[in-house]
Order: sequence, then structure tokens, then C-alpha cells
Amino acid sequence: MTAVLGIDYGGTRTKLLLARRAGEEWEVVRQDSVATASGSVVAIVDEVRSFVGADPVAAFGITVPGVLDEATGTVVRSTNLPWLDATRPADDVRAAFPTLGPGVAVQDGSAAALAEATLGAGHGHRDVFVVTLGTGVAGAHLIDGGIRAGAHGAAGEIGHVATGGVLRCSCGGVGCLETFIGGRNLGMRWDAVVGTGGPSGAREVVEAADAGDGRAAAMLDEATGMLAQGLLGLVATVDPGVIVLGGGVAQAHERIVAPTVAKVAAGATFHAVPPILPARLGAWAGAWGAVLRSGGLDGP
Amino acid sequence: MTAVLGIDYGGTRTKLLLARRAGEEWEVVRQDSVATASGSVVAIVDEVRSFVGADPVAAFGITVPGVLDEATGTVVRSTNLPWLDATRPADDVRAAFPTLGPGVAVQDGSAAALAEATLGAGHGHRDVFVVTLGTGVAGAHLIDGGIRAGAHGAAGEIGHVATGGVLRCSCGGVGCLETFIGGRNLGMRWDAVVGTGGPSGAREVVEAADAGDGRAAAMLDEATGMLAQGLLGLVATVDPGVIVLGGGVAQAHERIVAPTVAKVAAGATFHAVPPILPARLGAWAGAWGAVLRSGGLDGP
Repeated sequence: MTAVLGIDYGGTRTKLLLARRAGEEWEVVRQDSVATASGSVVAIVDEVRSFVGADPVAAFGITVPGVLDEATGTVVRSTNLPWLDATRPADDVRAAFPTLGPGVAVQDGSAAALAEATLGAGHGHRDVFVVTLGTGVAGAHLIDGGIRAGAHGAAGEIGHVATGGVLRCSCGGVGCLETFIGGRNLGMRWDAVVGTGGPSGAREVVEAADAGDGRAAAMLDEATGMLAQGLLGLVATVDPGVIVLGGGVAQAHERIVAPTVAKVAAGATFHAVPPILPARLGAWAGAWGAVLRSGGLDGP
Repeated sequence: MTAVLGIDYGGTRTKLLLARRAGEEWEVVRQDSVATASGSVVAIVDEVRSFVGADPVAAFGITVPGVLDEATGTVVRSTNLPWLDATRPADDVRAAFPTLGPGVAVQDGSAAALAEATLGAGHGHRDVFVVTLGTGVAGAHLIDGGIRAGAHGAAGEIGHVATGGVLRCSCGGVGCLETFIGGRNLGMRWDAVVGTGGPSGAREVVEAADAGDGRAAAMLDEATGMLAQGLLGLVATVDPGVIVLGGGVAQAHERIVAPTVAKVAAGATFHAVPPILPARLGAWAGAWGAVLRSGGLDGP
């Protein structure tokens, strides 16, 4: 069976993944990570060409960090990669490399969530809510592999439910869950505590806690308490079949995932608490999502 | 076209509604409210018989206040009407009144939400989230007339999202939205403020606020602020097409619905805020839901 290509187009690095269906499973033909040149998505085409080599590619998917009009494949706005604004990345790549086959653009968070729900920690579950704890906090609810996008395509923003906190959120709101558990906010809070120039991220807080710093441990304890509270609200309102915790912040399993799971269990009353599982695909989730969305899910 | 019967079986009164499809609309043949005798659902059958008279009935629906196993029509638990526990109310009514046609039992909150979403304020909208502000706070998300029940049939409990408050909720949790905007909690807070023997409900607080009591106005202001915060979290996470606010507490439009709508608008940042509409069917929503669930939606 012919392979399909996933391009996870990121701010500094782009991940390339050539994969092929093998019965019910997928197998990796080849994977690589290359530098992202700025200025145009077409700048990635030479890297793609040498990565693909002589292998036939049936179709490709390319992720976009930002807001995407999925119907037309047009980037509405990319804060991190402004040269993508108003372009159609899949069309542009194919125009520069016609033998690559038909392509589709997909929002990066949706792609990663689809992959985690389908091939990763959610594999075997019909109803999966993926929470991505990265610089910010994102979410996506997938049922039978389809994203519940909401009435205006705006669903999933669990990072912006209220907690009772008072910090201003990047969204303009006050006390959003993200102000406690988002990587950027954890780092900002930590820089305020230790008085360094920063900017720190979640990693510095976790490292300090692991090194015995009680202030860092208390900060993470508060953050996981707020996350547990938010997940209990999600369970009460949406009742997902399984929750997957992914993103860079969730890689600190003992400091983030494990205490959150314990606090959800302790705080549950009437709730139908589902399994809460760590993500499995790590940094390759976006590339796998691009593979799946390329059309490869139904076979080329 | 033959009529169908809705029986909204309540703790003190039971509402009876005979209705008939007229093209795309429904018309009321007759409606009445009768006392609910305790001890058995069969005690209502004489009232139903004299209400129906000689009219042929194609099917009926009966609401149940409590937890229902919809697959078998068996009541799992009814806190308010304990004689319903482990019974099959629709089967019992039909056994006592065989010419009534086939019947179906439906949970009362689901019935009311279905009716509001389909015939009431949500009419014409595909994607409706109904929030019922009664003694407690319940919710139901309906898309194309079908309830999004969640993976374990437990979705919709928006009354139990966290607010940052500290009062113990009836569910065993702390600071749930219901502790601010549920009728029972509003009454308890008010009794604590004015020092009466109580028990008051939302009505007493609204009346005091309307009479110029600043403490009552402040309490309602806090409650609608918390409700707005909860609705913004719902919009962020679920992105419904329209929100309907119903239940007894929401009948105080100027004190509850109007300020909530204003606060949601003021608090929105990235949110796709949908129309927030007052419920239209009032106390008859449950009976209309029983009519719809009787099978009358597709015509008898």
C-alpha cells in the first residue's frame, strides 16, 4: 500500500512522517525533523523532496499553528507564523511539488488530538476528550474519530473555564484554568516568586520542585488542584468516555498527571469519572494527525 | 390525526396534556392539572381516564422525577416519589388502562429540555443547551432534538461546575454553581441573612430585591455573576448554538435572565457567545416533552 505523508509545520522545527497502513495498524516508513525556514511555507519543499526521495506518496497532510478555515484550507490567522496568514499551505506545497499528491491543511491542535484519540492513549475508546497542557491549554472532544467542533467551530477551550482565580489570562479573561496550569503562566508565576529575569516555563518549576523547593511544589499542587476541578466540571457537563492529558507540561507525570488523577478521584461526588490517561504519542502527535487527516484513515 | 397524551407526573400535581399534530405544528386538544395521590402511579389512572374521555389516544408519555433506565423504562431511584423505585410507570399505567395505547417513561428534566429545545425557545435551532434553574440546577444539550447524554448518560450537570465558592453543595462538592443560583441555596443564603426561620426560596429573595432590599439585590447580583461565569465556561468548552434559561428561578426575568445575559456579553473575550433566551413553555414543558417522546414527534 502506498504511503502517506504527515508534515507537522512548527515555529522552529517541522516534523516529517511517512507512514503506511498495515491492516488495522500503521507502520512508520521514515520520520525526520528539519528546521523551519521563515518567510514562506514553500521554503519547506526542498526538505520534503529530499525526505520523500523516490517513494510514491498517495496524499499528504500539513498542520498549521493557528486558526484555519478548514472548508477552504485557508489560514485565518497564525500568531506564531505570520507569513501563513491568508495563504493555503496545502495548495502552496502541492504547487511547488506536484507529484506529492493531494494535500489537506489541518489545525495543529486538532491534528494532535485526533492522533492521540485514535492511535495514542485513546485507542480503543469511542469518546475521548484530549486536554493539551502546553504553553497554553487546549482541548478537543472526539467521538468515533470526529471532533465535536461545536456550533461555531469554537468548542474545546477548557483552558478558559473559570476557577475563582484572579490573574488576567492571555485571552483577556480573569482566573481562567490556563492561568494556573498553562506553561507560560506557570513560568511567569515562578519568575515572580524567585525574582529571576526569566522567562521560565513549566520545566523550571518542575525541576525546582524535584530539587526540593517547597514553593515550586506548592505552586504545582495548586495548579493540579485547579486542573482537577476543571476536569470534574468537564465530567459533570460533557461526560466523556476517557480523558487524555498531553502536551509538554503533562510530561511531568509524577508532578502533574498523577496528582491530578488522585485529586479528581478525591473530589468526585456524583461524577462518572472516566479513565484519565497520559498521552502516548508525545511530540509526534501532530505529524500522526496530519497522516490521518491526509485521507490515509480510509486507506489511499 | 389521532392525539397523543403527555403525563407530567409530579410530586404534588400531575399535568395532563392531550395534543395533536397539525402539519408542522402541534395543537392542544385539552390540558388539565390534577392532584397526585401518593402510594402508586396507578392511583393517577382514574384521573387520566376521565381526562381522556372518549378521545382515542395513539400513544402516551409519562415523566418521572428521578433516575430512569430508559432502555427498560424502570425507575432506578426517585428521591421525591419513592414508591416509583424499581417500577415501570408506563407499563403500570397501560396495564390499568389498556386502551391508552403504548407508553414510554422519560426523565422529567430531559422531557422539559426536549420540549424547550424543540417547541419552545429553541425552536428553529439545531444545537440547544437548556439550563433549568429550579430547586437545583440541571442542564441538557440537544442537537437535532437528540440529547447528548454523554459516555455514561451523565452529561449536562452544569449546576456542578466549580466557581471558587466555598459553600458545601447538595452533591457533596464545594462551591458548585448551584450553591449560588439554585433556588434552595438562594433561599438558604437569604434565611441566613435575614435570620427568619425559613425556609425561603428564590421567590423571597427576588421579592425582597424588588422591594428595595440591597442585601437581596447583592445576593442576586453575585448569583447571576456566577451563572454568567459558568455559561462562559460552557460556551468555551461546548460551544452550543443557543442557550435556553428555564425553571422557576429564571421566571424572574429582570433579576435573573437579563443581568446574566449582560454579564456574559461583558465577560466574553474569544467566546462565540450564542443567543441566550428565556424558556417559553413554562410549567408545561415536561408535559410537552412527554407528548414528544410518546412517539408523536413522527406522527402516530
